[in-house]
Amino acid sequence: MAGEVNSGLEGVVAAETTISLVDGQAGRLLYRGYEIGDLAANGSYDRVVRLLLDGEWPAVDEVLAPAKLSPTVLGALRSLPTSCAPLDALRTGFSAFGAERRMDWPPTPEQARELIALGPAVVGGFARLRDGREPVDSAEAAGLGISGRLLHAISGELPDPAKARALDAYFTVCAEHGLNASTFTARVITSTQSDLASAVSGAVGALKGRLHGGAPSEVRDQLTQIGDVAHAEEWMRGALARGERLMGFGHRVYKTMDPRARALRHVGETLAADADWLKLAIEVEDVALRLLAEHKPNRPLKTNVEYYASIVLDGVGLMTDLYTPAFAVARTAGWCAHVLEQAETGRLIRPDSRYIGPDERPLPRATAA
Amino acid sequence: MAGEVNSGLEGVVAAETTISLVDGQAGRLLYRGYEIGDLAANGSYDRVVRLLLDGEWPAVDEVLAPAKLSPTVLGALRSLPTSCAPLDALRTGFSAFGAERRMDWPPTPEQARELIALGPAVVGGFARLRDGREPVDSAEAAGLGISGRLLHAISGELPDPAKARALDAYFTVCAEHGLNASTFTARVITSTQSDLASAVSGAVGALKGRLHGGAPSEVRDQLTQIGDVAHAEEWMRGALARGERLMGFGHRVYKTMDPRARALRHVGETLAADADWLKLAIEVEDVALRLLAEHKPNRPLKTNVEYYASIVLDGVGLMTDLYTPAFAVARTAGWCAHVLEQAETGRLIRPDSRYIGPDERPLPRATAA
Repeated sequence: MAGEVNSGLEGVVAAETTISLVDGQAGRLLYRGYEIGDLAANGSYDRVVRLLLDGEWPAVDEVLAPAKLSPTVLGALRSLPTSCAPLDALRTGFSAFGAERRMDWPPTPEQARELIALGPAVVGGFARLRDGREPVDSAEAAGLGISGRLLHAISGELPDPAKARALDAYFTVCAEHGLNASTFTARVITSTQSDLASAVSGAVGALKGRLHGGAPSEVRDQLTQIGDVAHAEEWMRGALARGERLMGFGHRVYKTMDPRARALRHVGETLAADADWLKLAIEVEDVALRLLAEHKPNRPLKTNVEYYASIVLDGVGLMTDLYTPAFAVARTAGWCAHVLEQAETGRLIRPDSRYIGPDERPLPRATAA
Repeated sequence: MAGEVNSGLEGVVAAETTISLVDGQAGRLLYRGYEIGDLAANGSYDRVVRLLLDGEWPAVDEVLAPAKLSPTVLGALRSLPTSCAPLDALRTGFSAFGAERRMDWPPTPEQARELIALGPAVVGGFARLRDGREPVDSAEAAGLGISGRLLHAISGELPDPAKARALDAYFTVCAEHGLNASTFTARVITSTQSDLASAVSGAVGALKGRLHGGAPSEVRDQLTQIGDVAHAEEWMRGALARGERLMGFGHRVYKTMDPRARALRHVGETLAADADWLKLAIEVEDVALRLLAEHKPNRPLKTNVEYYASIVLDGVGLMTDLYTPAFAVARTAGWCAHVLEQAETGRLIRPDSRYIGPDERPLPRATAA
């Protein structure tokens, strides 16, 4: 039982991976060698899913086969109170699906594609049920990719192209990000030779925590308060003078601009002619970066992924309590890729603990004993 | 990204804990300082639950408040196919319960007691539903502890005292065992500030893996083949001569007899007059230990917990596919205790990974580009 206690496992290398490189110093994110900006600008989420699961860029741009809510999963969703948290519904839906499929060891890419395709149907189905509406027929949206199907599953309508494009870029940049707490959860569960649905529903549970899933609606609130780029400088100078944080800037890992934010801005610029909300966000970002550089010239904060995440999710009309579930649907790809990799290359993950409780002591006996 | 890769986290101390001491060299297991044999002989599972959650031995021997299957949890169970794995049903039931309760940060001992008390109702309810029977009214078994309620929830009958006592001792020795993969899963999920039900349903998912939940029906099959202690020596000599393993002996951590097996044997001896099945197991164990010492005099294998687990679970009439779910119900106490400890003392668990994938490469372009 020697060794230092490291309760956050900082700096402990728990896996070798070929899935992604998160390079905080250079502000670089690669999926299987492909740079995130390149993927967001020139790829599609469904193609990225295949890249993450299979390791190579697929020759053709095909969408995943659509998923239907089975009576089992639909029954589980119907039994939930309408007031429940959407991530709880997603966790329960994935769990019921695994029960229905009798998922067993080892996990397969086919199982992964099914589970990834199920995400929009579960989140959209629950979102409609809680509003007293019936889930829509996913066949109507079969030509769309996963991200478009999420919008259809919620609204029942086919999304406009600019919004669908922005959301697909968001899904692409959120698909995978190394060994964070939810991905690590999926790998620990898989390390016992448990099944894919167990691993992914565990990961959804981990994402639910505030320290991981975050509070992505805060950027939106900030932009709503600013309202117009003409007021941006005054509003932000006031906030900085009061010692407040600007939302959507600074990142634990990325010391320069978060490459996911850069990728989303770039896609946004190509769409801004059709989308006022993107134009405002881009202009406000420029003002914010200038003021932050002035405020802390030695180490100015740079834009993080939450900034554009919030803009895109608000822009496509998602309710704020569906922001993290949308993120979870996108991240299911990364979780599944890590599950497949862990199953192939990993072994049982079982760290030690150090006992610091009471010394051995006898159980108190009743007086008569 | 320095540091050795340690994909199993062997020897990494990921937590300090006051909950249990697993002392493999001395063959000793303490819950909060109390030795497992003392707890199994003189305690009760429900009292052990309070010890694990609260840290101190409760002055009075009270059972936990009984749990009823709510329409939400019952609805989720009814939606599952009767062919699904019982652990999948337990994972889904816990997940639906968390959704219904809107469990939030931080986890509390009250939430933990509710979840622990729910386990028998979910496993028993599912076991009856798949047989086309309705779940029973848990109020009939309100005077029993958790382990007795599991038998009642499955059979609808109040268990005989010797069986109930043996199962309660089994629940006691299985309640907690340090930082194994399922418990670690619960702690990782909790480290994001997610809720108790997310952590425990993740842990159930991890237990489902063969490397963790194991195959506890194998000892029972061995005893069935032996049939009578008069044939034990011949049968086992034959097995050893063929290079086969005797099931229920040897343990990764315990270098001497597994203290949980010793504790269960001891309780079994006090009951053997009323329970032939326990008598046979005890007599066969003696023969096996003698032969194993003869076979490998330098390092004879000793009895492990699976040996008596299998005997007890078969003896109380459980179907083999309910062995691991019964274990999960018992272990929910340990999971919850670790969740509470992690919430109070831990921080975000986020190890590193090392990228060994392709170097940065451009996305293949369509020929026209």
